[in-house]
Amino acid sequence: MYELWYWPTIPGRGEFPRLALEAGKIPYRDMAREAGEAGYKALGKDLDADRGDPPFAPPYLVTPDGTTIGQSANILLYLGEEYGLAPPDQSGRLWVHQVQLTIADMVAEAHDTHHPVALGEYYEKQKAEAKRRAEDFRVNRIPKFLKWFERILSERGDWIAGESWSYADLSLFHLIAGLKYAFPRRMAAVGGDYPRLMKLHDAVAALPELQDYLSSDRRIAFSDGIFRHYPELDAA
Amino acid sequence: MYELWYWPTIPGRGEFPRLALEAGKIPYRDMAREAGEAGYKALGKDLDADRGDPPFAPPYLVTPDGTTIGQSANILLYLGEEYGLAPPDQSGRLWVHQVQLTIADMVAEAHDTHHPVALGEYYEKQKAEAKRRAEDFRVNRIPKFLKWFERILSERGDWIAGESWSYADLSLFHLIAGLKYAFPRRMAAVGGDYPRLMKLHDAVAALPELQDYLSSDRRIAFSDGIFRHYPELDAA
Repeated sequence: MYELWYWPTIPGRGEFPRLALEAGKIPYRDMAREAGEAGYKALGKDLDADRGDPPFAPPYLVTPDGTTIGQSANILLYLGEEYGLAPPDQSGRLWVHQVQLTIADMVAEAHDTHHPVALGEYYEKQKAEAKRRAEDFRVNRIPKFLKWFERILSERGDWIAGESWSYADLSLFHLIAGLKYAFPRRMAAVGGDYPRLMKLHDAVAALPELQDYLSSDRRIAFSDGIFRHYPELDAA
Repeated sequence: MYELWYWPTIPGRGEFPRLALEAGKIPYRDMAREAGEAGYKALGKDLDADRGDPPFAPPYLVTPDGTTIGQSANILLYLGEEYGLAPPDQSGRLWVHQVQLTIADMVAEAHDTHHPVALGEYYEKQKAEAKRRAEDFRVNRIPKFLKWFERILSERGDWIAGESWSYADLSLFHLIAGLKYAFPRRMAAVGGDYPRLMKLHDAVAALPELQDYLSSDRRIAFSDGIFRHYPELDAA
């Protein structure tokens, strides 16, 4: 059985491997979630555990043979290879990973809209800077990234690679969901410019293999993680 | 022959695949560099070229069969597999990639010290915010990342994986070189806390297979790229 470790109360970066595990019907335990209120403490303890391949940060996946795999894109690379969640040929495998790494770049930038100057301090201590960073993100970065995703879908068809979803499609769904949560006015204003991307979001949300998960309490609601809704950081 | 595309006057993210190509003795053309003063224009034109797998941003590598591989960590994953610049077994391959992705995270944070709120605007327009971000980076993030790199070297030995260098060791060398350039006072103050890491930096700098490259003008000096030396952003 796989063990997924991530902060128990936010989707965060843990949601990318979690979606792949769920859509791929891969049995796993969500370790810190299972621990309930003690989840944060359990994760901290596990991070400090003596292991040969310590992860820098959650999420990380411990495989049944005890290997620890850190970095969400790296976990997905592994799951993609092992469970056919990406094309098996080298070119398709690298392509899906390239898209995943670009999604990760946008996720990091989305995070920095509310934490532009001090990663470990409260948002309230960097509101003025956050306002500038969020404006740049809304005006310049959202169109730059979404235009690229739209362009590759126009080249590739309904999915990032091949005839069905890959782990990068699942991640793209979560990215769009997060952007809609954090920047509803901006996404309402520009969403129509990216019809293929919005269609992909809806198609992943409707995947039969995800229905059970998405309607369960295993799918954690957005709140104060990477994607946060501060009305003052949003605008059309 | 491989074609590497990256901005021609800064090491930037292009330096990570470039170091692997050079140390691996893999023949390549540095396309925008070759174009001299016209390199920026040539890169812009190539980015707009009609291709099935458009890259989001440089660097990207075009393989002899015409495949475009974007994202520096993804290029390294490919080169690692094709040329033995990473362990061939799955576990070692994923481990080296995990380290590379963590290096990429720190590189992105190093960049944001001088561009914390508006990626496309001049540093001069965000100096106050840069001062806060750089302080957080120096005080909190440098020790957090370097401590982790030091810890994994203490588990693994002289190199990130195995008996010899991998692409992640080359990248770690460049990361440390960049940090020393951008934050000389901070790195002088804390460098002694990370002896294995500093030893790895020196060992890569002394690799016989890199001597020709490092003393050539193909190795671009740090200036106004990702790692920048603004004395006001540095402190012990």
